[in-house]
Amino acid sequence: MSLKQTIKTIAKNAKEAARGLRKVDRAKKDAALRLMSRKLLEEQGSIKQENMKDVEQARKTGLSSAMIDRLTLDEKTIKAMADSLNEVADLPDPVGEVTGMWKRPNGLLVGRVRIPLGVIGFIYESRPNVTVDAGSLCLKSGNAVILKGGSEAIHSNLILEKLMREALREVGLPGKAIQLVPTTSRDAVGILLGLKEYVDLIIPRGGEGLIRYVVSHSSIPVLKHYKGVCHVYVDEFADIEVASEICFNAKVQRPGVCNAMETLLVHERIAERFLPAMAERLRDAGVEIRGCPRTLGLVSWAKPAVHSDWPAEFLDLVLAVKIVSDMEEALDHIEKYGSNHTEAIVTNDYNRAQRFLAEVDSSVVLVNASTRFNDGNQLGLGAEIGISTSKLHAFGPMGLEELTTRKFIVYGHGQVRL
Amino acid sequence: MSLKQTIKTIAKNAKEAARGLRKVDRAKKDAALRLMSRKLLEEQGSIKQENMKDVEQARKTGLSSAMIDRLTLDEKTIKAMADSLNEVADLPDPVGEVTGMWKRPNGLLVGRVRIPLGVIGFIYESRPNVTVDAGSLCLKSGNAVILKGGSEAIHSNLILEKLMREALREVGLPGKAIQLVPTTSRDAVGILLGLKEYVDLIIPRGGEGLIRYVVSHSSIPVLKHYKGVCHVYVDEFADIEVASEICFNAKVQRPGVCNAMETLLVHERIAERFLPAMAERLRDAGVEIRGCPRTLGLVSWAKPAVHSDWPAEFLDLVLAVKIVSDMEEALDHIEKYGSNHTEAIVTNDYNRAQRFLAEVDSSVVLVNASTRFNDGNQLGLGAEIGISTSKLHAFGPMGLEELTTRKFIVYGHGQVRL
Repeated sequence: MSLKQTIKTIAKNAKEAARGLRKVDRAKKDAALRLMSRKLLEEQGSIKQENMKDVEQARKTGLSSAMIDRLTLDEKTIKAMADSLNEVADLPDPVGEVTGMWKRPNGLLVGRVRIPLGVIGFIYESRPNVTVDAGSLCLKSGNAVILKGGSEAIHSNLILEKLMREALREVGLPGKAIQLVPTTSRDAVGILLGLKEYVDLIIPRGGEGLIRYVVSHSSIPVLKHYKGVCHVYVDEFADIEVASEICFNAKVQRPGVCNAMETLLVHERIAERFLPAMAERLRDAGVEIRGCPRTLGLVSWAKPAVHSDWPAEFLDLVLAVKIVSDMEEALDHIEKYGSNHTEAIVTNDYNRAQRFLAEVDSSVVLVNASTRFNDGNQLGLGAEIGISTSKLHAFGPMGLEELTTRKFIVYGHGQVRL
Repeated sequence: MSLKQTIKTIAKNAKEAARGLRKVDRAKKDAALRLMSRKLLEEQGSIKQENMKDVEQARKTGLSSAMIDRLTLDEKTIKAMADSLNEVADLPDPVGEVTGMWKRPNGLLVGRVRIPLGVIGFIYESRPNVTVDAGSLCLKSGNAVILKGGSEAIHSNLILEKLMREALREVGLPGKAIQLVPTTSRDAVGILLGLKEYVDLIIPRGGEGLIRYVVSHSSIPVLKHYKGVCHVYVDEFADIEVASEICFNAKVQRPGVCNAMETLLVHERIAERFLPAMAERLRDAGVEIRGCPRTLGLVSWAKPAVHSDWPAEFLDLVLAVKIVSDMEEALDHIEKYGSNHTEAIVTNDYNRAQRFLAEVDSSVVLVNASTRFNDGNQLGLGAEIGISTSKLHAFGPMGLEELTTRKFIVYGHGQVRL
């Protein structure tokens, strides 16, 4: 069978499985998730064995030790995957929720009920635990999923898929509800993106290059973010200690992720008191500062920022810093260079806080808190399959609810339209 | 200025206007809508004069009298437009609604608040009143809109746009919030569909050809339905009189619209009692029946259905009829040939009603009511800008809420991520 035929068959089977999933009650889905969890622990030996093949291959091809670290499955990471399956089982089932019901003047009872989207295509280049995350969230929300993981994790992904599918079949659910594309070929992605007859949504997760490729080649709707150019604006009425803690956390705690701060905007009236000490604290943590001319006046050792620094997602211990004359200038800067991802203000002024929340056009806007909270789990959605910075369907972290849609149901007793 | 430059300028201005609209309160938007309503009545003479140019042109080019009828604006249709503007003003403002707010264990207060999508591109070939409908719904939901109407209505659309923009400016809102592409060139559509930097959503309304063109050429997300192949399933436990009223209404009341019935499915155990009389009643109303072989056994004068009749949207007094052996066969038929638009069951059996509602994968699913109720106004959304049969973002009639998205707002007091 050609690759195209293989993937088409997978997609057809996914659509068939999705039809079956529509009518499945929560108890059965949760039973499958808990059984998957047990299987992961029981089959730990085989998982490590398969994972070792990937790790050896990665060593041969000279992947960085950080990459190999991310790839490696040990007792701790397997336990974490098993735990997360149980956590997803514990989350409420979004499917079947009636989000409203009302009576029309003619007696029709109209309601909106949550239903699965259908078939999700999930394209990722992350560590193998994402295979389990995506599989579990899609199952819980009643969707069939087609997983296309990175070639470097193919053996790990294959055994994780196998165990998940065994669990599905053992509780009487369609085994084709979770399918991995069993190839390391890059062509598989392009083929999958053309199957709009079978696939309802594509979610890519990985570097900006992968995501741009997916968006420009997909005939299927895509939920994604390209990058997170997140700003913290320290207002003139900020508490300096609070500002320092938030900026330090937002930049340093995990610089390589999309919700880390990339640009710091400082009101000119607080800059002298705040910026030199803040810059020093960041420098001590290894952060390189790229400042606007006024910043350089206060932080002589900083590098001058060039134009390309303002829209940059450094994903590293690098920070662009700009002193602004007023809040309006901060808002304009965010409007111009931001990525609609995550923005925070630090202020004790009530009106500025409210104005920032109202006017900043980002998926998560915070007052006096770190940008690092843009995360489904941290915000209370229970789990997330990704973050969307386009506004259609989902804006911000995507949890179980974002993997569903709502249809209208109507109870009548013979009504016709006049 | 080239056409491309003109449209790009319109789109840039729309994006600028959308930023301004984000912070506008309801009172101002409603004031603009009510002023538009008054202007339409006051400027009735000029509207009719401009409309007459379109009508004369349409006569010259030999448009059908039905088309000319749809195009013509008289006292009654202008009054209806003016009334609908006031009705939109009366609807609640979706923007700013906090759909939920909760406290996290670390004290963060997290909420989701409704915000406008941004810039809507609305491409349509309908009668001129749609210009006013789209303008008013987009304004009320805080969006800027770019209108690209049909060439046959260009003079009418231009004066309606002019009056709406005057009203915007007079109440102090950005006049560029509602802009019509001032050309009859078809190329304008293609240019607009490429401006993803400025436009957040495209909604096409018109024939299947227009919609397929838009979907295949757009770099911007599109909300649409291609067609409505709507089914009524008359179950063995249907009340025959109720079934007859519903089928008659669904087929005959307005056959040219997307929520009219196109295929009737009849359970074999009720077919003999129900179908011959139903078919006669429909024939008396001018309906042509295209039946499956078993239908032909009961309705000898019916035409035999060919395969292409089952997925067909006739938009006319034509009905495909199939007798099914059981409900399963009806569900399978809908799954295979339906368009996820609108499906109804007629039954007095509780379990079959609930099963149909649960399993049919359509945007509106009804029990004992006509398919003609798939309409934003009829279902209680107040108004609609279109109907979506794809599941992302909106499924079913799209009202004001569907022209918005939700962002997360977070109130903290210095929280950082651990």
